[in-house]
Amino acid sequence: MRMGILGTGVVGQAIAGKLSELGHEVTIGTRDAARTLADTKSNQYGGPPFSQWIQQHPIIKLGTFTETVLSVEIIFNCLRGDAVLSTLTSIGPEKFAGKAVVDISNPLDFSHGMPPTLFFVNDNSLGEEIQKLLPQAHVVKTLNIVNAEVMVNPAKAGKEATMFLCGNDPQAKARSVELLKAFGWHDILDLGDITAARSLEMLLPIWLRTWMTLGSGYFAFKIVRP
Amino acid sequence: MRMGILGTGVVGQAIAGKLSELGHEVTIGTRDAARTLADTKSNQYGGPPFSQWIQQHPIIKLGTFTETVLSVEIIFNCLRGDAVLSTLTSIGPEKFAGKAVVDISNPLDFSHGMPPTLFFVNDNSLGEEIQKLLPQAHVVKTLNIVNAEVMVNPAKAGKEATMFLCGNDPQAKARSVELLKAFGWHDILDLGDITAARSLEMLLPIWLRTWMTLGSGYFAFKIVRP
Repeated sequence: MRMGILGTGVVGQAIAGKLSELGHEVTIGTRDAARTLADTKSNQYGGPPFSQWIQQHPIIKLGTFTETVLSVEIIFNCLRGDAVLSTLTSIGPEKFAGKAVVDISNPLDFSHGMPPTLFFVNDNSLGEEIQKLLPQAHVVKTLNIVNAEVMVNPAKAGKEATMFLCGNDPQAKARSVELLKAFGWHDILDLGDITAARSLEMLLPIWLRTWMTLGSGYFAFKIVRP
Repeated sequence: MRMGILGTGVVGQAIAGKLSELGHEVTIGTRDAARTLADTKSNQYGGPPFSQWIQQHPIIKLGTFTETVLSVEIIFNCLRGDAVLSTLTSIGPEKFAGKAVVDISNPLDFSHGMPPTLFFVNDNSLGEEIQKLLPQAHVVKTLNIVNAEVMVNPAKAGKEATMFLCGNDPQAKARSVELLKAFGWHDILDLGDITAARSLEMLLPIWLRTWMTLGSGYFAFKIVRP
C-alpha cells in the first residue's frame, strides 16, 4: 500500500523504516526536499542527520508535503505537535479528502521549560483539532504514548503491552489495527471516537515521569485485566 | 497503627475495611457522625448506605473530621475531589502537622457533564494544592488511578499491575509503600516529588475511557519494561 509520512524526525524515520520493511511503498514528505537532504546536522537526540538515514534507505522516496499527501492512501502525521496545524493548513486540507490520517503527534508545549505541558487538554486535543481541520479525512489517533523504537517494535518494552487507538471512521481504524498488528502490537483497545484522543494525549505526563524514573524509554502501558 | 479515613464513600469504606482487616486501628472521620449514621440512602453506586456498612464493621470507629485527624498517625484522604480543599481548611491545616496524608482524591469536575474534566491540570494538581494547604503534613499521592475494590485487592485486576506514588517526604513514602505492599501491590514506582501528582491525576481520562471500553472497573495500569 502507498504510505506517506509527514515529518523527518525519529518518529517519522521509525514508522517509514518499518512500513518499508513490511513491503509498503513509502514516501516521506518535507517542506523542502533539497534543503532536507542538504542538512547535515544531527537529529534531536544526537543521532545521524536525516540526510544520512535516507541514504541508507534508498527504497524510501522523499517528496514535498503536498506530493506525499496526494500520492498515498494512508498518511502518518509524525510532525512536532506545535507545527502540525500550521503545516496541514499550508498543505491544504482539501488534499486529505478520503484519506486515513494516523496521528502520532502530541500537543507538547516546551515554552515554559521542562516538563512540557499540553497546549490542548481536558475538553480538547490535538487529534480532534486535526480532524476538525481535515473534515474529509479519517483521523486515527494511536502510537503517541510510546517512544519511536517501541512504536514499531513493542517487544523492546515487553510483549504484553497495550496499544490504544481512537477515531470516528471504523474503516480507518480497522486499517490502523492491521498495521499495529504488523508492527507487533497484539493487545489493541479501541477507545471510541476521536474525542478519546484527549485521554491518549494526557498520558504524556505519566510517560515522561516514568521515563525519568526508569531512566529508559523502553517501556509501554499495559491494561491489566482478569 | 492508628489510621484515619476522611470520607465515607466507597473509597473510604474500601480503605478502612482493608486497614482494619490488616490489624490497624481505624477511625473514619465525617462532618457530623450522628447525621452520617442516620442517613439510610444508598451510596453513589446504589450499594448499602454507610450507616449499614459501619454496623457490619463494629471495630471501626466513627468520629468527627477533627477528632479523626488529631487521633491518628496516617490520614487517607478519600473525600470527593471538589470537597477536599474546603474540608481540610475547615478542619484546620495546623492539625495535620507532622502527619502523613495519603491522597487518593481526584480533581474531577462533573459540572459540564460526562466525561468529567480536571479542575487542576497541566502545571498544577490537587495533590500539590493539598500539600500547599497543609505545609507541615507529608502528602503522598497514590491509588487514585484504580477503582476502590482494586485499590485494596489488585488481584481483582490482575497480579502484575503497577502502582505509582509520589510525594516530598521519603519517610511518608516508605510507609505508604509498606501499606501498598500489604494491600497486594508488588510493582510500585516512586515518581518523585508531589508535582508528579499531575501525571497521576491526568490518568483519569484514560481510566474512564478504558472503563467505558471494557465495561468493567476491574483493571489497572502496568508499566511493561524489559
